[in-house]
Amino acid sequence: MKLTPQERMLRACRGESVDRPPVWLMRQAGRYLPEYRAVRAKYSFLEMCQTPDAAVEVSLQPIDLLGSEACILFSDIFVPILGLGIDVDFRPGPHVDPPLRSQADVDALAKPDIREAVPYVFDILRQLRREVDSRGVPLLGFAGAPFTLAAYLVEGSGSSHFAALKTLLHREPKVLRSLLDRLVELTVDYLNAQIEAGAQVVQLFDTWAGLLDAAEYREWVLPTHRAIASRVNRAAAPLILYVNNGSHLLDSMLDSGADVMSLDWRVDLADAARRVGSRASIQGNLDPCGLHAPGAEIAKRVRDMAEAGRAARGHILNLGHGCLPGTPVEGVRAFIEAARALSAD
Amino acid sequence: MKLTPQERMLRACRGESVDRPPVWLMRQAGRYLPEYRAVRAKYSFLEMCQTPDAAVEVSLQPIDLLGSEACILFSDIFVPILGLGIDVDFRPGPHVDPPLRSQADVDALAKPDIREAVPYVFDILRQLRREVDSRGVPLLGFAGAPFTLAAYLVEGSGSSHFAALKTLLHREPKVLRSLLDRLVELTVDYLNAQIEAGAQVVQLFDTWAGLLDAAEYREWVLPTHRAIASRVNRAAAPLILYVNNGSHLLDSMLDSGADVMSLDWRVDLADAARRVGSRASIQGNLDPCGLHAPGAEIAKRVRDMAEAGRAARGHILNLGHGCLPGTPVEGVRAFIEAARALSAD
Repeated sequence: MKLTPQERMLRACRGESVDRPPVWLMRQAGRYLPEYRAVRAKYSFLEMCQTPDAAVEVSLQPIDLLGSEACILFSDIFVPILGLGIDVDFRPGPHVDPPLRSQADVDALAKPDIREAVPYVFDILRQLRREVDSRGVPLLGFAGAPFTLAAYLVEGSGSSHFAALKTLLHREPKVLRSLLDRLVELTVDYLNAQIEAGAQVVQLFDTWAGLLDAAEYREWVLPTHRAIASRVNRAAAPLILYVNNGSHLLDSMLDSGADVMSLDWRVDLADAARRVGSRASIQGNLDPCGLHAPGAEIAKRVRDMAEAGRAARGHILNLGHGCLPGTPVEGVRAFIEAARALSAD
Repeated sequence: MKLTPQERMLRACRGESVDRPPVWLMRQAGRYLPEYRAVRAKYSFLEMCQTPDAAVEVSLQPIDLLGSEACILFSDIFVPILGLGIDVDFRPGPHVDPPLRSQADVDALAKPDIREAVPYVFDILRQLRREVDSRGVPLLGFAGAPFTLAAYLVEGSGSSHFAALKTLLHREPKVLRSLLDRLVELTVDYLNAQIEAGAQVVQLFDTWAGLLDAAEYREWVLPTHRAIASRVNRAAAPLILYVNNGSHLLDSMLDSGADVMSLDWRVDLADAARRVGSRASIQGNLDPCGLHAPGAEIAKRVRDMAEAGRAARGHILNLGHGCLPGTPVEGVRAFIEAARALSAD
């Protein structure tokens, strides 16, 4: 079986047979790449997200320079929040001042047509789709998950403990529920619009849901994941669900109905593959800091991950977290090359 | 069976029968208490740790004001590091500049007699022991675990990813190993000196070991926990092992030989109790943010935790992480009162 990267990715997401696992890296377009930094020097972070030529250029760099087998939209999870009429300061993590804490704050959120609110996102995707089609590579869209967006909106910024968010959860559960409902609507619209604009796979990033225990995840987060999985056009684009620091949540995540479970590096991949079995495909999960290891060690880890992933219906080789700024380019290259050297047997 | 809090704690640690689980809270002497803030206003954080009268006063506040059933030494995990000849800036998290990155840096560490290097720690413990004996309450000592101390020493401060630490692990494993060896020696001496000074239980805090996957934990951290568990005088004082964010590490932690596994709130307590069984006791594990919930909900969570913990040989009610600065005092009170209202059946 000889597959294009596009075919390989879509088949792996859906659990159809493939010659070997596809490979890409979360946050593969990023500061670790000198060519990215050269573009970034000309724009603020938000300008990069809003300037199609720049965003298209950096989105393609990991494919053209390093051989990654998927292209992901360059953007930020907080870009669609701009459409809600909220001022966001990217440092580069999102800062929101004042944070949202009351029902009135939630009720005041705008309800824009997302296609008109952030048109550049869809321009970038349309341009990228033409570029990746000529390379035979799949195009991925993405969105931040409602709980993670709510975490920043309520807390005002990233935080070690998100105590303000959790205080709202315990003291004003209706306010948090209504904010999550609003963000589910936004996210469904946003992902479907990305699919219309050319995304062939979409990934939902829940960076902060791992702060909750399994019972709280099932009460607060799982309903948002289920709603998104049931309302996004998954016939057109499979859905990957990533929960950062979610090793204790895998069994619950499976109930979301997403096509692919993207796993943190703390998850034992062989164990996860067995638990997932035929219910979903998996993605992951090397610790991004592991890219500092010598190339031969990285290659061994890739082979071990591919072997461990066989028990799942499909496996996409990736990191367990986004690529970090100080990552050595040669480590990323070794990771991708080792994956591409795998053969079916 | 009518037990004093001292007897109840020691029996629970060792898996002997008790009337009900003992209760205390990690970081129970802290900024959430107005009476703590009143003392703290007169000293810097480090001065508090070095001034026996102040440290004794705040250590006793949770017992006398809130009814906590254990007294823990007020100090910081980085206090013994001062004895290595390293300048530490407490903001209040430890900052070390320049960080340790080479074999020469490790070789240059002083090898002091810990009793002479930080004599105030043992003065505090001796004073506290007299105070708690008259109250029938047990005295707990503690230390930061070698991996967590190394994390700050190599990184220079707290960090989201500890990329410098992990880079050292992958690039210069011998340097990290030798730093950990040195810190094991320090920690064994330090905990044994605390036991001589009156600590009846000691807790090892591994705040950052949860950044590793299980295979890395077994290679890098478990040997340090095993060495400490085998060389600390556990006949005189049982050892509690806390690994923050370690829900994926419980089975490996059990191999440490520690008497009590102190669990993060992300661990399912009933599942953990079954897995631990007769091998160890458990401690935990309410999310400290759960203390923002109404009192009746907190009481229900305490009863549920006590019920879930029954499958383990012993259970100490506690949080899954240290008490946070914004915690409502009435939440802490509700937690302790609910625990004290439990009865044997």
